[in-house]
Amino acid sequence: MTRLVLCAGITRTAEIDGISAAGADPELMVHTPSADSEILTYGRTVRSPVVPVSPTGCPTPAVVTRAVVERLGLETTVVDAGLAEPTGAPTVTVGANPGRDVRESDPVPSAPGAFAAARQFGRALPDDELFVSETVPGGTTTALGVLTALGEADVLGTSGEAGAVSSSLPENPLGLKREVVAESLAASGLSPGEAAGEPTVALRRAGDPALAVVAGLAAGALETDTAVTLAGGTQLVAAAACLRHGGYDRRLSLATTSFVAEDPSIDLDRAADALDLSVTVTDPGFTDDHPAMAAYNAGEAKEGVGMGGALALAERASVPMADVRSGVRDVYDRLLAETDREVPAP
Amino acid sequence: MTRLVLCAGITRTAEIDGISAAGADPELMVHTPSADSEILTYGRTVRSPVVPVSPTGCPTPAVVTRAVVERLGLETTVVDAGLAEPTGAPTVTVGANPGRDVRESDPVPSAPGAFAAARQFGRALPDDELFVSETVPGGTTTALGVLTALGEADVLGTSGEAGAVSSSLPENPLGLKREVVAESLAASGLSPGEAAGEPTVALRRAGDPALAVVAGLAAGALETDTAVTLAGGTQLVAAAACLRHGGYDRRLSLATTSFVAEDPSIDLDRAADALDLSVTVTDPGFTDDHPAMAAYNAGEAKEGVGMGGALALAERASVPMADVRSGVRDVYDRLLAETDREVPAP
Repeated sequence: MTRLVLCAGITRTAEIDGISAAGADPELMVHTPSADSEILTYGRTVRSPVVPVSPTGCPTPAVVTRAVVERLGLETTVVDAGLAEPTGAPTVTVGANPGRDVRESDPVPSAPGAFAAARQFGRALPDDELFVSETVPGGTTTALGVLTALGEADVLGTSGEAGAVSSSLPENPLGLKREVVAESLAASGLSPGEAAGEPTVALRRAGDPALAVVAGLAAGALETDTAVTLAGGTQLVAAAACLRHGGYDRRLSLATTSFVAEDPSIDLDRAADALDLSVTVTDPGFTDDHPAMAAYNAGEAKEGVGMGGALALAERASVPMADVRSGVRDVYDRLLAETDREVPAP
Repeated sequence: MTRLVLCAGITRTAEIDGISAAGADPELMVHTPSADSEILTYGRTVRSPVVPVSPTGCPTPAVVTRAVVERLGLETTVVDAGLAEPTGAPTVTVGANPGRDVRESDPVPSAPGAFAAARQFGRALPDDELFVSETVPGGTTTALGVLTALGEADVLGTSGEAGAVSSSLPENPLGLKREVVAESLAASGLSPGEAAGEPTVALRRAGDPALAVVAGLAAGALETDTAVTLAGGTQLVAAAACLRHGGYDRRLSLATTSFVAEDPSIDLDRAADALDLSVTVTDPGFTDDHPAMAAYNAGEAKEGVGMGGALALAERASVPMADVRSGVRDVYDRLLAETDREVPAP
C-alpha cells in the first residue's frame, strides 16, 4: 500500500518580508499549514479561519493533491511537524515545535527529537511505499540554510553557482534568502559545510521542524525497506541531502512538478546526480482559462503538500490529467464557496 | 460521504478491580484506546507496546471494525478524547484530558470544554453521515454514572429496574458498577436525576471524557443536518440520553452488535423507545472455530470501537458477513504476528 504523509509546520523565517507566497498576508500565513492539512484530509477547511488562496487567485497546492487523493482513494496521514495554529485534521505527534526565525542562534531546538520520533514512526508504519511531503511557509529559505550548513549550497545551482533553491513566488528572492542563510549560520557560529555529515545539526541551526520530520520519517522508512518518494521540490532536495549526509545510501526517489523542474533559478538534474535521486517530473497540463491554473502557469506556488508526488501517482494509476484538472476545479470551487459559507453559531 | 469517528479516551474508573475487560491487565489497559486507534487507522499497532487481546484470546473489537474499514474503504477519524498514552494514529484535538476515577468529586473537568470543541468540530465536518464511536475502558460504568445523574438510570433496565448497562465481561459486575456510581454522585453532591437537562454536568461529575466528546460531536453534526448514527452499545445509549437532555430532538440512530442486543442484563428496546432511537442490530455470525469469535460468542467484549456500526455499514453495502469474518481472521493474525515480533505477551 502507498501512503502520502504530510509534514506540516511553521518557521518564523516566513515572516521576513518578501520571503514567501504561502498565504495572502503574513498574519494569515501562520494558518496555511493547518489549513493545508484540513484540505488534504477533508477537501475543505474545518477549523482554519483561512482559505489559502493568494490575492491573484492562486490556491495552495493542497487543492491539487486533494483532487488526486479523491480520485485514487489514496491514504494520507498528517504529522504535526511544528504547527502554530489549531487544525481540524487529525495529526500524529512527534514532539516538533514551531521553528523560530533562522537568524536566531538555536531556531529549531526540537529538530533532533522530532527527527528521532519521526524516524521511529517511519519504521513502524505498515506501508510498502511512502510519499513524504511538506507544508511550511518559508521552507525554501530554511532548505537553503540546511543545504548550506551541510556544504551542499551549490547542489541546485545553475552552472554550479552556490545558494540556489526554488520559490513559491514568480520572482525568486534568492538574494534575500542567501542573506538570511548567511545570518543564520553566523548566529549559530557555523561556517558553510561545517554540519557536513550531521543533518540534525543543520536542521536545528539553519532549518525548520517540517524538514526535520520529513527527513526523520524517510530515514525510518528506508531502514525498514519501505520505498520512499520525496514528494516535493527543492525542500525535498534538502531532505535528500540530509539523508545522504546521515549515511542513508538506499534508493531515493523525488517526484515533483514541471513548475519546479522548469524553474530557471535551479538545476534539478544537477541535484539528482549529486544526491543519486531518481526524479519523476509530472506536468498537470494546466491551462490559462482557470485562475488557479493560470497562477501556476505564471510561476506562483509551483509545488507543496506533495503536489508533484500526487501527480506522479495519478499518472502511474493512468488517471488522465484532464480528470485531475477537473478535480482541481471542483476542490477550488468548494474552497471558495466556503469563504462565503460560515455557519452561524446557534 | 460516511465517516466513522472514534473518540478514544481514558477514565481511571477502569482501574477499579473487576470493572472492565478492555485489556488483559490494569497496567496495560491504559494503552488500549491508543492501540485501538492505531488498529483502526493502520490495521496494526504502531507505537503502542500492547496488542489488546485478552488471555482467552479475545481481541479488541477494533479488529472487527478494521476488517470492515478495509473492505469498504471507509473514512475514519480518531479524536483524542482524553488519551493517557501516546498513539501513532493521527488524532484531532478537542482539549479532552484523561478522566479521573468517578468516585472523586470532579473527575472530568475537561468535559464541558471538550463537548464544546467537539460540537464545533462536528458542525464543521463535511460529511453527509457520521458514525460516532468510542474506546474507553471502564466506559459502561461512567455511562451508568451519566444515566443516573440525568435521571435515566432505568432506561436500560430489564423490567424497569434501575442501574443497568452492558459489560465487556461475560459476568457483568452490575452491583459493583452501581456502588461506584452511587459513590460518584455522593462525591459530587448530586442526587440521582439532579443533572437532568444538563448533560455536561452529568458528563463532568459522573462520566468520562470520551462520552463527552461523542455527545459533543453528535450534537454538532445534528445541528448541521448531518445524519448521526451512534455506533456502539450502552455507552452510546448514554450519549443519546445526553443529546435528548440537551434538547436535541432530531432523528438519532444506534447501531450495535447482536452481543449487546442479546445481553440479558439490559433491555435495549426499552432504551430505544424512551430515547426515540432507531436501532440496527447486526449479527456477524461468529462461529466457535476461531478463538476471537468464540470469545465474543462467550460474551466477552461485545462491542466497542464502532463494531456494531461497522457491521451495519457492511450489511448496507451488501458485503457478506462471511467476508467480514474472513477479514477479522486476517487482521487478528496480523496482530498476533506482531506480538511475536516485539511485544511482551499479556
